[in-house]
Amino acid sequence: MARSLGRICRGFQRLGLLSSVQPGPSHPSSSASVRTTFSMLGLKSSFFAKHRDFSLPNSSWGTEMMRLYKHYDSQCEVELEGGEKQEGPWQRLPSYNRFIKYATGGHYLSKIIQSKARLFTRNNKDAGATFEYVLFFNSEEQKCVAIFQAGHLLEGPPGHVHGGAIATMIDTVVGAHATIVSGPVVTANLNINYRKPIPLGSTLVIESSLVKKEGKKIFITCKVTSSDGSKLHTDTTALFVSISVSNLLLGS
Amino acid sequence: MARSLGRICRGFQRLGLLSSVQPGPSHPSSSASVRTTFSMLGLKSSFFAKHRDFSLPNSSWGTEMMRLYKHYDSQCEVELEGGEKQEGPWQRLPSYNRFIKYATGGHYLSKIIQSKARLFTRNNKDAGATFEYVLFFNSEEQKCVAIFQAGHLLEGPPGHVHGGAIATMIDTVVGAHATIVSGPVVTANLNINYRKPIPLGSTLVIESSLVKKEGKKIFITCKVTSSDGSKLHTDTTALFVSISVSNLLLGS
Repeated sequence: MARSLGRICRGFQRLGLLSSVQPGPSHPSSSASVRTTFSMLGLKSSFFAKHRDFSLPNSSWGTEMMRLYKHYDSQCEVELEGGEKQEGPWQRLPSYNRFIKYATGGHYLSKIIQSKARLFTRNNKDAGATFEYVLFFNSEEQKCVAIFQAGHLLEGPPGHVHGGAIATMIDTVVGAHATIVSGPVVTANLNINYRKPIPLGSTLVIESSLVKKEGKKIFITCKVTSSDGSKLHTDTTALFVSISVSNLLLGS
Repeated sequence: MARSLGRICRGFQRLGLLSSVQPGPSHPSSSASVRTTFSMLGLKSSFFAKHRDFSLPNSSWGTEMMRLYKHYDSQCEVELEGGEKQEGPWQRLPSYNRFIKYATGGHYLSKIIQSKARLFTRNNKDAGATFEYVLFFNSEEQKCVAIFQAGHLLEGPPGHVHGGAIATMIDTVVGAHATIVSGPVVTANLNINYRKPIPLGSTLVIESSLVKKEGKKIFITCKVTSSDGSKLHTDTTALFVSISVSNLLLGS
């Protein structure tokens, strides 16, 4: 395992990818810097087109999921007078089933570095069976919003979503948010209050807000609500810590 | 969905199953009462033999997983002088892929009440791909121990287990513990400190301890360590609340 991870790490380093990713801006509301970090993570690479992007709609998405997707997606690009287009307040974050695919050049790397490993939330090929979600980021407001449809394979209490599946989605959203703010991070603490059980099949809105960034620490809060915002299902405080991916890969 | 849940609930009620499950003893160390609650949940039903029990060893289990399994399993039954056998200090908890199968008569109920829903931690048929685990309970010490082998489809940070997958296993262990103590429960709070990332493929020990039971509230702590106990990966405090399953099923 260690040898395999070392090989992956050296693969990244040879291609000058993750070693160049540094913690982001110290002031969280600096949207230009956030966009730079975002770009350094390769999230806008042209290579994306060559992977399946799980954040795009599929036939399993219900009416509510599609309505909310369109609501945010329509704000990712705005048309100026004269017909010219420019970036809007929201950005849709693409989503893949291997971490390596997030890096610039990940298309080739994923062929060179073969692995059975798959991102936990994207490990099932059956559309609608587990986690269907899409993340949007608003750099001006320092907010992340995910639209999440809970599939039938996520059961915990009968007819309801497993507490661990909810925690997984929360970790995914706040983790993506922290990564945009500060480059590679690991979860240090999740404190989740489960207020109302979530029926299987529900469409939910997960919204995270940056509280503060202190050195290597990033503090974020997160709420999971029903799609119309009327029911609060969970509220969470999360702490992330910036890391060097090289160290993580090498287990040091 | 509500109609479907109502049907399931009425199915349970007709058969006099979950409606008869009441919160357990107020004194947590009353092992006889705990065993009664345990039995009321149907966990020792002869119907078990008719389901696949996911807590039994399969070909994906590594050396460390098997060593620890045998260590606890060998303490589930003790031989007295004269060759007679009796229950030991530990009990292995069977594990199924549908909640309904945990109830007495679940074999028949699962055929009557068709559903695509599957327990989140047991939704993958490929042995070793996701969550491989077995839980043991010690009523005298009021402790639950799970042996957990993390499969390649649980990836979060590259080469490591997703924070949500760890939270899922923690929720599973403390949730099972709370259920034994107090009958049906829902998670009210999970406060998880992630101290050391877990490499994919690791075998881990998850140990939960009952702190106290106050009315409907059950307080439990939980630690995830390496299989030899030398590394502390996470520590958690958890709060569960006793519920009526009928209410949960009917969404009230």
